Amino acid sequence: MNTIAIALHGGAGDRDRSATTPDNERELTDSIAEARETGYMILEQGGTAVDAIEAAIRIMELQPCFNAGVGGALNTDGEVELDAGIIDGATHVTGAVIGVQRIKHPITMARYIMEHTPHVALTKRGAELLAESIGVEMVEKEFFLTDETVRLLHRMQEKEQAATQGEGKVVLGTVGAVALDRFGNMAAANSTGGIMNKRIGRVGDAPMNGAGMFAHNGIGAVAATGYGEFFVRTVAAHEIIAQMRYCNTTVDVACMNVLSEIESLGGRGGLIALDAHGTVVMPFTTTSMVRATRTSHGIITADVW
Amino acid sequence: MNTIAIALHGGAGDRDRSATTPDNERELTDSIAEARETGYMILEQGGTAVDAIEAAIRIMELQPCFNAGVGGALNTDGEVELDAGIIDGATHVTGAVIGVQRIKHPITMARYIMEHTPHVALTKRGAELLAESIGVEMVEKEFFLTDETVRLLHRMQEKEQAATQGEGKVVLGTVGAVALDRFGNMAAANSTGGIMNKRIGRVGDAPMNGAGMFAHNGIGAVAATGYGEFFVRTVAAHEIIAQMRYCNTTVDVACMNVLSEIESLGGRGGLIALDAHGTVVMPFTTTSMVRATRTSHGIITADVW
Repeated sequence: MNTIAIALHGGAGDRDRSATTPDNERELTDSIAEARETGYMILEQGGTAVDAIEAAIRIMELQPCFNAGVGGALNTDGEVELDAGIIDGATHVTGAVIGVQRIKHPITMARYIMEHTPHVALTKRGAELLAESIGVEMVEKEFFLTDETVRLLHRMQEKEQAATQGEGKVVLGTVGAVALDRFGNMAAANSTGGIMNKRIGRVGDAPMNGAGMFAHNGIGAVAATGYGEFFVRTVAAHEIIAQMRYCNTTVDVACMNVLSEIESLGGRGGLIALDAHGTVVMPFTTTSMVRATRTSHGIITADVW
Repeated sequence: MNTIAIALHGGAGDRDRSATTPDNERELTDSIAEARETGYMILEQGGTAVDAIEAAIRIMELQPCFNAGVGGALNTDGEVELDAGIIDGATHVTGAVIGVQRIKHPITMARYIMEHTPHVALTKRGAELLAESIGVEMVEKEFFLTDETVRLLHRMQEKEQAATQGEGKVVLGTVGAVALDRFGNMAAANSTGGIMNKRIGRVGDAPMNGAGMFAHNGIGAVAATGYGEFFVRTVAAHEIIAQMRYCNTTVDVACMNVLSEIESLGGRGGLIALDAHGTVVMPFTTTSMVRATRTSHGIITADVW
């Protein structure tokens, strides 16, 4: 059998290790391992890379410990504005939703846009109108709130903490995935609530093809997490694939080059990336990145620090 | 004096030459030449590349013959949803607005986001709330309508023509600019109304850093126009800079490589691009691209076909 591989992230950020209980940590690793197994089983049964990453992200969108779907970060109005994006490295079709509030699985709507419309991105009401018309599962926007996100927002608003990377705010829990299927197809995707207490309408790298995600069959697949603005400025995911494609840079060196460039601009974050041989790298420059991988080479991991 | 250069596009598309009167043609070339001169004078007087392209695009945003600001394409609801983006190749700071309806100069708000916020993109109401709070000039959304855009929308809706590239629809008049200033700084920007009769919430390449625009001092600057979805799929502007940077590909060959790739995917469009020596190329694969350039090498042009 050809190599198959999946890697997932549950967000890079400056998590406080001393404030993280063993139970917190276990929830994170168990949650991402569940998504990993779901995605891997699809690959093992002959599913495509796109099938695998969509299924894995759908699981993480419903897990309240991640900043995507349920548990997604709240804006200054106390509402979610969810972003998701996906790219199929076989054909470079791509799809994204930006700022949606009532679509239960933003990643599924991003995939629908990719596969069934001529478009690559729809925002807010436009995405929701299309979602309703095609029968995608809708929810009330309160569906995504959790006690913890509401409490955290209030605490931040009391302290008047603007949630911007410029002010050193922690960004945690965006989810993403990359995969290589048995046909050699590669794909990448992200889903996120953005930054807690974010300015209304703020968009980061997660739904932006080339910035937060990119995939090119025969070369690699990348998904990014962290201070998203820096990944947009550097067009991070596409830059990694370009270095691999044009300079024969290995996936690990290309990722470190881009994280170094981002660090030189004042930003931090993490990456999950695959090359065409199924080599997985998951570097990060924050204190933590929830991450997991499984490959047909026998590697199975799920880690936080 | 060091080389200075500016190049502008007023949109690539399949304009019907037989239906274009000499007056129409003169309006297009006169309008873009006015923007070109404004931008060039700024460069000549020691202004920066960012100053020059913002000023040039502000002019085109008010000219009804272009699909940006006044005269911008209307969505299925008969409203504008304007997108603009800008990148400074000196520092890779970037800013964008997506789907705004009441900001008189979307490009100026994109620049404000780039320079004065930690963010890279704001959508719709979020961008407008910030614009109002900082005193950026606001207008009623009817300000952007013209008799011609309203008439064209009605004609398309009568024919039930969905305005998608998949269905062969013409896209005309997005505006963009690239410049090289005497300090060696390079910058790129776009402003657009998108596609006539577009789906509500549709976003193309214009505001997406790396797709519709990219700039990297010492290498080049690129702005794209055409069937935007294909420029997002290929991360077109960043791909051109990557080929120039990593493969020593010349700017003209890199642009043709990307237009060829886009053509192989079924898309068409045009590019304006500069290298660090002030070499300007403006290739397109549609029947027309309104375009103009002026450089300190003595080149001055303004053309349609």
